This record gives sequence, structure tokens and C-alpha cells, in this order.
Amino acid sequence: MNKITNHLPTAELQALDAAHHMHPFTSDGQLAKRGVRVITGAEGIWLKDSEGNRILDGMAGLWCVNVGYGRHELAEAAARQINELSYYNTFFMTTHVPAIALAAKLAELAPGDLNHVFFAGSGSEANDTNIRLVRRYWDIKGQPEKRVIIARKNGYHGSTMGGGSLGGMPYIHAAGGKIDGIEHIGQPNWWAEGGDMTPEDFGLLRARELEEKILELGVDKVAAFIAEPVQGAGGVIVPPTTYWPEIQRICDKYGILLIVDEVITGFGRTGNWFGSQTFNIRPHIMTVAKGLSSGYQPIGASIVCDEVAHVIGNAEDDFNHGYTYSGHPVAAAVALENLRIIEEEGIVEHVRDVAHPYLAERWHALGDHPMVGETSLVGLMGSLQLTPNKEKRSKFAAKPGRIGYMTRERCFKNNLIMRHVYERMIISPPLVITPEEIDILVARARLSLDEAYKQVREEGLWQEA
Amino acid sequence: MNKITNHLPTAELQALDAAHHMHPFTSDGQLAKRGVRVITGAEGIWLKDSEGNRILDGMAGLWCVNVGYGRHELAEAAARQINELSYYNTFFMTTHVPAIALAAKLAELAPGDLNHVFFAGSGSEANDTNIRLVRRYWDIKGQPEKRVIIARKNGYHGSTMGGGSLGGMPYIHAAGGKIDGIEHIGQPNWWAEGGDMTPEDFGLLRARELEEKILELGVDKVAAFIAEPVQGAGGVIVPPTTYWPEIQRICDKYGILLIVDEVITGFGRTGNWFGSQTFNIRPHIMTVAKGLSSGYQPIGASIVCDEVAHVIGNAEDDFNHGYTYSGHPVAAAVALENLRIIEEEGIVEHVRDVAHPYLAERWHALGDHPMVGETSLVGLMGSLQLTPNKEKRSKFAAKPGRIGYMTRERCFKNNLIMRHVYERMIISPPLVITPEEIDILVARARLSLDEAYKQVREEGLWQEA
Repeated sequence: MNKITNHLPTAELQALDAAHHMHPFTSDGQLAKRGVRVITGAEGIWLKDSEGNRILDGMAGLWCVNVGYGRHELAEAAARQINELSYYNTFFMTTHVPAIALAAKLAELAPGDLNHVFFAGSGSEANDTNIRLVRRYWDIKGQPEKRVIIARKNGYHGSTMGGGSLGGMPYIHAAGGKIDGIEHIGQPNWWAEGGDMTPEDFGLLRARELEEKILELGVDKVAAFIAEPVQGAGGVIVPPTTYWPEIQRICDKYGILLIVDEVITGFGRTGNWFGSQTFNIRPHIMTVAKGLSSGYQPIGASIVCDEVAHVIGNAEDDFNHGYTYSGHPVAAAVALENLRIIEEEGIVEHVRDVAHPYLAERWHALGDHPMVGETSLVGLMGSLQLTPNKEKRSKFAAKPGRIGYMTRERCFKNNLIMRHVYERMIISPPLVITPEEIDILVARARLSLDEAYKQVREEGLWQEA
Repeated sequence: MNKITNHLPTAELQALDAAHHMHPFTSDGQLAKRGVRVITGAEGIWLKDSEGNRILDGMAGLWCVNVGYGRHELAEAAARQINELSYYNTFFMTTHVPAIALAAKLAELAPGDLNHVFFAGSGSEANDTNIRLVRRYWDIKGQPEKRVIIARKNGYHGSTMGGGSLGGMPYIHAAGGKIDGIEHIGQPNWWAEGGDMTPEDFGLLRARELEEKILELGVDKVAAFIAEPVQGAGGVIVPPTTYWPEIQRICDKYGILLIVDEVITGFGRTGNWFGSQTFNIRPHIMTVAKGLSSGYQPIGASIVCDEVAHVIGNAEDDFNHGYTYSGHPVAAAVALENLRIIEEEGIVEHVRDVAHPYLAERWHALGDHPMVGETSLVGLMGSLQLTPNKEKRSKFAAKPGRIGYMTRERCFKNNLIMRHVYERMIISPPLVITPEEIDILVARARLSLDEAYKQVREEGLWQEA
């Protein structure tokens, strides 16, 4: 076989990709007909593709490249660690310095008594770990029947069988099944589901579904509740201000373990180190991944409170769970260097004091666009809800996702990566984005909205459902 | 916090590890009391610890460091890729060259028409993918009720909720549950379970349990069978020669998809590129990880045949599954460089023609040891069954695992990493091991057996169950 490099023509790379590469969340047949886009390089917040386009990455890869692309310090950290200790496991009574140092650093950064770290290779794996941790915890406490985990419709917790079951996406459950012992309650999505209620009342209503579900199942059956501070893949759904205090009250009242999935919201995304700080949540376990290494290495973790870690650690039997790559030394060394960069360069403060305020003004101004019904922004994760009728908060009559997809394609054409979740356009740019770059992002977003709006009108799709 | 480096005293590193690091398959409380061993560096097949010991790694990390530790080419590949494109996803109609090139390379190396690659971050994740792939396949084919996957007792397929459920380890199922739609049949472990039968007859008997299970469940309910060519974590159980041909016949006869878990056996471990070649198996899907990157990076994959990939790829809907780190460019670039090393340095041939024959002679000679009842070796994965009575193939009266653990501790003391699975001592050294190093490995193994035997006798444990 000839060497496959960036120098091959795009068509050749596309043909090889179509012949051998199965894509996540994709119809490979349709992708092959259309031709895949080949990303060849990246620096800061900018991607390069095989056709020479320079693209502003409004999604930080997949919500993960917090420090931006191409940081040479991270290349050096990886190379240094490979030369020193390229791999070792943490099973069988051994450890290594990168795992120790990263665990200690996460314990220092995480709020409260979240002092113990179980490493995984991804957020998905960490959420599978969490299912085992909370069930094992109650088992040791003499309540093995406390095993149900309550999660939320339209939540996202990964794509393993466990993670995908915690998530509330029916299309993922349809792709191979949903495991038992997971129950879903409604999401705090006021715009789509709040009807005539105020956001505050609706937030309370949705939080109280947790209490109802606990009472319906019996508190002796419920192990834990899991949620993202702000739903990410669900469409950057920012909950009403009443939601999290009420959830916290209910978890406290019934002694339910609270797992907060910080895979997207961790490491500066919301303007604090963790979304739990932004929303004043006190989790027993936090799931982290993505920003932990700025996506430069596959790594995730569960950060666990003293009580849960001590109960599991002091049991007579082993906790029979773990991954070959738990605490991988190279991934851990890169994550550590990434955290050093975030800390020493003041990136969390940059989000809080500079980038968020600057973007907020411009992002919310997009609310004047005829197609935009709601603008949301927490730190540097934001969304625009597209609608044919802002007052009635209507959906489009077209097939769900069609208008959003059309808008995303306009963004692509304008060299801006935005994602759509049905008719919600979302952004999550690298945290190092500057005000000048924010101007470009917002200008391209507006241009794309204008073009999509024109197309929607021309194609006769400006119809309420 | 002070900087945590290899230069801190061992006791300080141990204390930090105990305070913050939760270990896989471990009782953290007991580990803390005892003090963890800190690995600080590695080169070739040799580990260094914080006390200055130089240890022969007979397990290649965790069955994964096929090309040996500290290969600078892999450090360079990682750094180069991070500088060029440190991350990008393969969702949303994009791809990148490392994912294309690795997919194409795996299609070239894998046997038959295994031409399509779905990337994951680990073997666990890839097996979760496989559950979704086979169920989705039958769903599209109009047989959604074909969803049961038959697996084996004492098989190992990872530690996610899906992977752990495919595995046949009750202690993993106990740690948080087992998902539905997975059934287990017996393992082809003649030494432990073959009674008075010949190995050949026993191999047929155990293979035919698959046919019985298919008929019991109904062929219209069974999606797939999954197995390792040689059980790894189960204790390096080499099946009788009759086993795999009969399994293949049964899968063919009933049209059951065959998933072969090559996480341990892939990339030269058995003296061929894949264990499926060594045992003449024709899988529809192969799970790979570990040796794919020689453990230098967290990466796994499902390698999928034309039929399954085309049915899923040509469906109208997306295959709604995938991981943030599917096809991670840095992990893929390192894996590619690792495969180049294996190929250009002739490491598969080294195993087949040099290391295996040399080790085989010496490994099987350990069968003369009074405590060794069976010696097994395929390529460079081997086991020794400890027994107080070779003729009767008896177990020890002591608690299962006690004698094996005692023997493993002797190995540690003698600076040899071996693992025990109950009373089976196992090895899986880096594939680059030389004859001189094999001499050291076998000499240390014999010394450790001698010492353990003496201890067993002295402590009055030489008792049959």
C-alpha cells in the first residue's frame, strides 16, 4: 500500500475513508456518496482542511480542545513521558508518578471532599465506572436493592452500553439496547416544554419529577441521580435558576448519591473550574474527560467523595472493575501539563472576565434575528434556538433537524464549525478565543443565519408545526 | 502543592497515591496498608521502580507492550501528530489522515474481508460497540428479536457494563450488574474441567454447548457468539485442537455472527498477526486494542466484515453510536508507527521463528517442577497450572488464589513480573524478548516456583482439595 499522507488528493483520501473507516453517529453510505471533509491541521482555534480552507472551530473539536490546538508543550509532555515510561498498569499493587500527580491535582482542583480519582479512558468509560461505584457502594452498605440510577431525557452520558443507557437519547437506546435499572425523568428545557409557565416555576416542576420518581420507585431502590449541569449534546439547555437548588434539596433529603457529569462543563468551560461551582452543586461523584486533556489524549475519570471512596476502599473484597488504560501515564502526563497551562495562563479567568462577557453581549444580540427564538450562553457554551415564531415558541413544520442541518451547512460553507441539535445551533469554542476571534465567530454565525433564513423562505419552509 | 516527580521518596509517593488514587481491581484500603510499588521508568522488557529495582516485565504491562518500552520513534510520532493536528472528531462528516491511514492498514492486515474499522478508545469500548453492531445488524435485517449474544464463562471482554457482561467473571458481574441479553456457556478448560475425557473429546463437548444454547434459545433469538482465541485473563487457557473447528462449524451452520476478541492475541502475540490465523477462525468482527499501539496510547477498534459494515452503512438511519476519541489522531498516528515497527522489524516472524520455539522448550521443561501440572504456550502467551497432584489434576485445599498469590509475590521479590489467575501463573512478555532474556525469565520463574514450593510445604499448605 502507498503511504497515506496529507499530500494525497482529497478525492483519494475520501475514497480510502469510504472504503475502510466507519464513522460515529453517521450513515456511512450517505457520507461516502457526499464525500467526507478531511481535516489536515489545526492551530489555536483554527482548522485547516485538505482543500486549503481555514475554518474557525466553534465547537473546540467536540467540546474538548479547551487550550486550543497545536500547543507544543503538550507534544513535549507526551514525548517525554513515552521516553520515560510509555505504559504501565495500575492493577496488581503498582502505580506510577503521572497517575499519582494527576489524581492529587484533580483532588486539589475539585470542590468539596472530592478527593479520590478512578481513571478511565473516556467520559463513557467513567460513567460506566460510576454505575458500578454507586451500586457497589450501596451493596457494601447492606442495601444491594438500591441500584436504580435516575437520569434525564435528552441527557448525554456517553455511548458505551452503560453511558448510552444513562443518556436519555432514544436513538442511542435503539442502537443495541438500554441496560436495566436506569429510569429517566423530564429535562428542564423551558423553551421547548415549558408551555405557559414561567421558567422558574417550570424549573421547580422538572426538579420535583426527581422526588416523584424516588417516591414512585421507593427510596430503598434508588442509588443515584446523574445529570449534566448544562445539557450539552442535548442542545446546550441551560436550566432555570430554580432547578439545581431544588435537585440538591431532593438528593440531600433522600440521601441519594448525586453524580454530576462534568465531561463538557469541566475545566473552565462555564467560567469556573467546574460547572458544579457555577451552579452551586455538591456532587458525590464528578465525571470528567474532554477538557481534562483538552482532547489531546483519550482520558477520563470519576472524581469521588471521601464517603464513597472510603466505603469501597475499606471493603474486604476488591472493587472488581478497571481498564487497561486507567491512569495511562502518557495521557496523565499530557493532562497534567494541560492543567498547568489552564492554571498558569489564567484561562478560567479569561473565560469568566474577558471572553464570556464579550461573547455574551454579541451572542444575545443574535436574538434580534428573525429565525432566532432563544439565545443561551453559560461561560463559553452557547445555543440559538431556531423558530418560525418567537412569541409562540413554535417548531418548524419541516422534519425535525432539517432547518438546523441547513443552517449548519451554511456555517460550514462560511468556514465556521457550529453544530446543530435539531433546530438548536450550538457553540463551544476553545477557551483561548480572543475578542477579535469572537467578532469573526459571531459575524459568520449571523451571515449563516441570514443565508439559511433566505433559503428557508425560498424553499417554502417558513411554516409552523 | 509541591511538584510530584520521580525524585520524591517512595514513602511520600505511596502516601499521595493512597490519599487520591483509586486502583482497578484492588482493595485500596489493603493496598494503602501494604504500600504500593511505584514504577518509574522502562526500556525494552525492563521496568525500573522507585527503589532502584530492575524488573523483567513478563506481562508486557498488561499484555500490551508488544514492541517493548521506550521506543523513541513512538514518542516522535506522538509529538509530530500533536503539533500537526492534536485532536479532531470523526463525527459530522469529517475525517483526518491518521484515522484513514490506520483504518486502511488494519484492513490490509486483517484476514478475509474484515475491511472496515470502527474506532474506540479501548477493548472494553470496542466490545460495547460490538454489542451495538450485531444487534443493529439484525434489526436492519428485519430480525430485531435476534439480540442475544452468547459468550463464555471465564472469558474476558473488558470492564464497561457491556464488556463486563460479555465476560464470564462472576466477580465483575457482582460489581454493579450484568446487562440483559448475554448468555454464557462453558469454557474449554480441559485441565480444570475435563475430568476423564481426552482433551479432544472435551473440546468437542464444550464447543457443542454453543449449539445446545442456540437451540435452547432459538436461532431466531441469537445475534452472535463472542470468544477469545485463547482465554487471556481467564488464565491463558489454550483450547483443545478440536474446539475452534467445531465452533466455526456451528456458527456457519446457524448463521450466527462470530466476534473474535483479539485484544490480547492480536498483533503478533500468537506468532501470527492475529490469533484467528493461528486457530484458523473466520470472524465477522474482530475486537482489537492493546498491541494495536503496544499500549503507548489508549486505542481500540472493531474490525468489521463487508456484510455487516455494508448492511449498517447502507441503512437509511445513522448508526447512533461512537466515542469522542474514536480514531483519535494522536493515538492513531502512534498505532500506525507501532504497526510499521512490527512489520519492518519482523516482530511477528521473531515470535514465530525465534522467541516462541526457544521459550517453548524451556517453558514446557518447567513441567518437571513438583508444583506444576500443566504448561501451556501459544506464541508468547503462556501459563503454568499449579497443583498438589499432577496425575489427579487436583486443586489445593487452600483458599483459591492463595498459592498463586504466594508464587506471584516470590516472582516480584525476584524481579520478575508474572501474574496469577487463581493457581495459574501466566506470562505474556514483550514480543521483542531475546533468547538471553528468555533464559533470565525462565530462571527467575523456576527460582520463584522453588521458593513458593518450599513455603507451601513449610506452611502446611501442600494439601489437595
